[in-house]
Amino acid sequence: MIFVFTGNGKGKTTAAIGHGIRVVGQGKKVLLIQFIKNKKWPTGEEMALREFAGRFEIITGGKGFVGILGDRLPRSVHKKAAQDTLKKASKLIFSKKFDLVILDEINVALSLKLITIKDVLSILRLIPNNLDVILTGRGAPKELIRIADLVTEFREIKHYYGKGAIAKKGREY
Amino acid sequence: MIFVFTGNGKGKTTAAIGHGIRVVGQGKKVLLIQFIKNKKWPTGEEMALREFAGRFEIITGGKGFVGILGDRLPRSVHKKAAQDTLKKASKLIFSKKFDLVILDEINVALSLKLITIKDVLSILRLIPNNLDVILTGRGAPKELIRIADLVTEFREIKHYYGKGAIAKKGREY
Repeated sequence: MIFVFTGNGKGKTTAAIGHGIRVVGQGKKVLLIQFIKNKKWPTGEEMALREFAGRFEIITGGKGFVGILGDRLPRSVHKKAAQDTLKKASKLIFSKKFDLVILDEINVALSLKLITIKDVLSILRLIPNNLDVILTGRGAPKELIRIADLVTEFREIKHYYGKGAIAKKGREY
Repeated sequence: MIFVFTGNGKGKTTAAIGHGIRVVGQGKKVLLIQFIKNKKWPTGEEMALREFAGRFEIITGGKGFVGILGDRLPRSVHKKAAQDTLKKASKLIFSKKFDLVILDEINVALSLKLITIKDVLSILRLIPNNLDVILTGRGAPKELIRIADLVTEFREIKHYYGKGAIAKKGREY
């Protein structure tokens, strides 16, 4: 089944990870592939999930935020990274080693046109029967919504950033 | 800070658990208190989180779904269970042993009037400075939205239940 977690609200990636924890608890295997995040700073979830090595694998394929927060990388570098990550994802999806594959922030990579919806759909149309795939990130394209079995929109109703608070360890990463 | 995860879409509890995993990975302590769920069947997340014992604690205070799925318990039993769970939650919140406390499905307990918003607010108004509290469940009352620092509404855009699929191990529990 195909799950899409989209919208501008907080919780999309953590919901995918929590779902992964559930799957691991049922004795199954999970793969998390990060399309935007880079390897520089391991997040809290990455550190915790190391304890589930072999059951909850993480691949960090991104090169960091694109065009913001001091990003100076040429667009071609981000594009190549996202496309390589998609290739890797495809290979691992069809390896049948996993019961759940999380394509984290792939919707953002799509919005930024680092990868094409056509390439993503060509993978999703062929996923093995018992595999669940979760695609996260704001701005999921309508072609993805159409093919998905479940879509949750995470709507920001209120956020403390508006009150001047900043990203904090354990809250945002 | 106070986080509210509400709305009719899938992912509220898993988002809270994923957030908890992040917090554990940063070396902090998490408590998950379940207001509706009973102990009969351990879920996938409960089984996986046992590996984080001492760092990610779970208290299951509910008596199961209220009024549906064959529930035959008198309302008074659900009410007492929810009120006892709230008392326990209050005690543990003020014990300062935890950095994050998840009050899972408490919004449902509120909607069902098993507990009062007045009692919940009287706890939330006094939470220690460095504690984060996440309240999950559909139908969060407006008094809770008002006091919260962050609110995400999980909106169901599409769900496979509509297509006749049923709850599946690893997907729903």
